[in-house]
Amino acid sequence: MPKVAIVGYGQTKFSKDNFKIESVLQNATKNLFDSTSNLSQKDIDAVLVSTNNNSKYLSAILSEMIGIKPKIAHTIESLCNSGTNSIVAAYSYIVSGLAELVLISGAERYDSPGNILEWDNLRGEFKHPIFWASIFSKSYKRKHSLTDEDLALVSVKNHRQSINNPYAFSQKAVSIEDVLNSKKLTDDLRLLDCSRPCTGGASILLASENICKTFTDNPVWITGIGQKTTSASFTKNPTFDNMESTKLAALHAFQMSNHTPNNIDVIEVHDAFSVCEPMALDSIGLVKEGEGIEMVKEAYLTENSKINPRGGLIGSGHPLGATGIAQTIEITQQLQSNAGKRQVDNANVGMVHNMSAAATSSTVLVLEK
Amino acid sequence: MPKVAIVGYGQTKFSKDNFKIESVLQNATKNLFDSTSNLSQKDIDAVLVSTNNNSKYLSAILSEMIGIKPKIAHTIESLCNSGTNSIVAAYSYIVSGLAELVLISGAERYDSPGNILEWDNLRGEFKHPIFWASIFSKSYKRKHSLTDEDLALVSVKNHRQSINNPYAFSQKAVSIEDVLNSKKLTDDLRLLDCSRPCTGGASILLASENICKTFTDNPVWITGIGQKTTSASFTKNPTFDNMESTKLAALHAFQMSNHTPNNIDVIEVHDAFSVCEPMALDSIGLVKEGEGIEMVKEAYLTENSKINPRGGLIGSGHPLGATGIAQTIEITQQLQSNAGKRQVDNANVGMVHNMSAAATSSTVLVLEK
Repeated sequence: MPKVAIVGYGQTKFSKDNFKIESVLQNATKNLFDSTSNLSQKDIDAVLVSTNNNSKYLSAILSEMIGIKPKIAHTIESLCNSGTNSIVAAYSYIVSGLAELVLISGAERYDSPGNILEWDNLRGEFKHPIFWASIFSKSYKRKHSLTDEDLALVSVKNHRQSINNPYAFSQKAVSIEDVLNSKKLTDDLRLLDCSRPCTGGASILLASENICKTFTDNPVWITGIGQKTTSASFTKNPTFDNMESTKLAALHAFQMSNHTPNNIDVIEVHDAFSVCEPMALDSIGLVKEGEGIEMVKEAYLTENSKINPRGGLIGSGHPLGATGIAQTIEITQQLQSNAGKRQVDNANVGMVHNMSAAATSSTVLVLEK
Repeated sequence: MPKVAIVGYGQTKFSKDNFKIESVLQNATKNLFDSTSNLSQKDIDAVLVSTNNNSKYLSAILSEMIGIKPKIAHTIESLCNSGTNSIVAAYSYIVSGLAELVLISGAERYDSPGNILEWDNLRGEFKHPIFWASIFSKSYKRKHSLTDEDLALVSVKNHRQSINNPYAFSQKAVSIEDVLNSKKLTDDLRLLDCSRPCTGGASILLASENICKTFTDNPVWITGIGQKTTSASFTKNPTFDNMESTKLAALHAFQMSNHTPNNIDVIEVHDAFSVCEPMALDSIGLVKEGEGIEMVKEAYLTENSKINPRGGLIGSGHPLGATGIAQTIEITQQLQSNAGKRQVDNANVGMVHNMSAAATSSTVLVLEK
């Protein structure tokens, strides 16, 4: 099977700016062009846009703004994991031979319609994601005898790590007390337990093995892909203390890449809320069920940033359509030893975990240098 | 390269009904399940939704409603050619080995936000597609010395053909006078020159060669794919009397399939407005430039329905996200000799032409039995 490499990337700062979606897409892509050698518009076969924005025809609009006339151009939406869905689509266009070079640009505005789960009527008026996150937090704490302080550590760690990410929404450290004293949103969630909607973009360039050396001496390979959608409504989850779709996606990604959890040197997980980080580490199988929080504690105490080195969604902000792409850029930079102050030692194999809507859908990618 | 077949399909009636988008997706897909042998929810690897609707997470919602837990699930949008973009994406998921069986469901409501070209500000307030169509009509008539009566024949032919399509929006014949006497919308366009926004859905099932015989004895193969986006705004078109993106897409589709225009026995072209049908026939290369209207006239006079047998967009209606899929279903039925009163003689090789926004983007598919 042909191999697919990541050969370029660009981002905007994640912020509360009121930029138009087209500008965010353009700025992230301009950053990609500025930092990628030998890249010419005419070589790009496909332009995919990842977003929940309601504007139409954005891939054609971005293409015209950048001067690309692609064969394939469309938008992909799957709520919070639109970005990794787009990466999988691009991978497939390359492996199938329909494209050799694919640009993906993910962008969102702080006021994205994807921030609210409009369809999930079983919760009545409680359509904001904090309501499922609250139930997840209560269930996970009860099952594994954890406290609010335990979960607050996720936010403390990720805020600390985001200080080294120049594109992150948050640039300041917080303490356990800061988290516990932040505004209480539900019985089990405080403001600093939550990732923040924001405006931001992330673009990434995928190439076939044939041409990847044109653009970089340091390609990063996509060697494992797992995806699963178990439902749309969170009430169909069999339990609220682990992520069924993540388990299945991780299983497929490990199988395809011939790796095991022991091989993963650095990982981006979808910490939309603090409870999601340990729960994802459990569900991926990096630790036994319930031990995710121990892995978080160890990383925090040893100042090892192997879990969410860019600060996660909690530290970096969560512009939905950009998130999965920004996560993938982070792992790419880590494997290229190009992550600056965030660099993890001996990063050879990395993983990206992205998900939507109470983990009803997940994507897991394995990347290698 | 692995081969990809169309092995099932289902549609709803195109209408002005006020159904929810989820219901339209579900009804078209239920029709597909009812008419496809041996199809089990658990065998479906990917669920793609094609729409311009603003609702999010529709592929997961449709999956839950139908009882599918797919690996791959997302929405694809590229205005009017979202449907064929989704078919190309599905093709690529199968050829790349990420999926063996892909369900695509396209749906739209009559009030779709894709009906208006919000971004095309060079036209000031003239954002409705009738304004580009009017300029196309004026240019094409002038270049090829045609009259309003000449173009009206497209509508007459397609309305006549739609009478034999039980899913079509229009079920009645119109005369040249009816077209010319219908409400004047611009200097060059009357109401009956235009396809009508409507509510409708179309679902299609694609399978790998390995498993296609499970579902049908009569698979139809996708053997040619061409796509091109030249811009987003129609003012970038080099001329207004042919379709540059269609020319390039058709060239690629012919090359990939090893066919020539002479081999095409039946074709669906994107007649969003009457002028688009002859212009597309020219641009695809089925006739010399300017001779498309002669091909339309000959088909009309000989009662040969090889061009837009289901009645085209003008006769069938144009629910954007469903259109490209409904076009592909029509060619599939023709190649299966399963098109009832619409059946064209000796249909062995067929073509689908779908496009967006003043032909700034086109998809051309070659299908074979």
